[in-house]
Amino acid sequence: MDFRTEFKPLTVQPQEIEEKSFQIITEELGEHPFTEEQYPVVQRVIHASADFDLGRSLVFHPDAVKAGIQAIRSGKIVVADVQMVQVGISKNRIEKFGGEVKVYISDKDVMEEAKRLNTTRAIISIRKAIKEAEGGIFAIGNAPTALLELIRLVKEGEAKPGLIIGMPVGFVSAAESKEELAKLDIPFITNIGRKGGSPVTVAALNAISLMAERQG
Amino acid sequence: MDFRTEFKPLTVQPQEIEEKSFQIITEELGEHPFTEEQYPVVQRVIHASADFDLGRSLVFHPDAVKAGIQAIRSGKIVVADVQMVQVGISKNRIEKFGGEVKVYISDKDVMEEAKRLNTTRAIISIRKAIKEAEGGIFAIGNAPTALLELIRLVKEGEAKPGLIIGMPVGFVSAAESKEELAKLDIPFITNIGRKGGSPVTVAALNAISLMAERQG
Repeated sequence: MDFRTEFKPLTVQPQEIEEKSFQIITEELGEHPFTEEQYPVVQRVIHASADFDLGRSLVFHPDAVKAGIQAIRSGKIVVADVQMVQVGISKNRIEKFGGEVKVYISDKDVMEEAKRLNTTRAIISIRKAIKEAEGGIFAIGNAPTALLELIRLVKEGEAKPGLIIGMPVGFVSAAESKEELAKLDIPFITNIGRKGGSPVTVAALNAISLMAERQG
Repeated sequence: MDFRTEFKPLTVQPQEIEEKSFQIITEELGEHPFTEEQYPVVQRVIHASADFDLGRSLVFHPDAVKAGIQAIRSGKIVVADVQMVQVGISKNRIEKFGGEVKVYISDKDVMEEAKRLNTTRAIISIRKAIKEAEGGIFAIGNAPTALLELIRLVKEGEAKPGLIIGMPVGFVSAAESKEELAKLDIPFITNIGRKGGSPVTVAALNAISLMAERQG
């Protein structure tokens, strides 16, 4: 293949860029309240958002990181609320332990059921997911309605996730849904406030799968 | 399909959530320097990030919005730098005018060439894209190296995009790449600083495609 333009060597390679970024983050973040096992998650969230306030707003259930590592190493399913989360997740580190990354929101039966019940596809996709993903990780970066539905199902004893990473972004219900998540007595990672989104949710999960791999 | 749990009517439907969000954004943003045609882009960027500072940091070439609308209505290709940008873009409003959304970064020939030249896939994917996408829209939300390469090709007269939406996020080269973009005398939308990312890049493009559709 002819790419027409001449090659000019890059001074900075992707691996170097990441290392340099992490160094800047550590320097600029300074003191923080996170544990040694939580810090890689915080670091990758800041890396994905360039937002220190967002990083500092993270809230961890005390068992969250351990539970996430355990779920990945046991080959549990990872459920993404939307495609943007699914495509961002590093699949190889999930699949090498036998797991897979699933997203249900565009499934035909989910769309039909949402229409029939006049509710959101996000909600119905969670009802479908909990049947397949007991003990799995739910990564919710976009839809507060999905997170609220999952919280409801946990409270009613119908869903038993291994870890919920819940960081939807937005002006309506997002902050409230995360406050509700932080009240649960099961492993969760979330943040306080309106900010959040797919890239930071992906970053948190990728940080955990990297720890899972390194324990091997 | 049996979803096992009873239906509970939602008080807030997706359309209502969006309208209420836009209302909050307009109220809280207050005075701003943007034109009437730029404002929908700013509004959707804030909606996607819950970050008013990021919204206020947007910089538009004076012809940017018009050029973007024109490109979409002429059925030009939209090039996404990464899959996370591609999956977020509302395809129907691109395709109804004959356009399509493409991403080259995982193409086999791009991967091979990047390896051969010891450079990033992002750079090689841009070299491939400019051949197919003359007059098209480049939506770059992740890779500063892709944006820098595109800027170089524009300066050398090898690339003639209709619009560049360039909002990579990060600590190394991201802010610098956007400063370079803002110096070009072709239509661009970018922002000042480290923040940015796939969702805000998608939001800017979706705002423009919505305007393109409404002009019809």
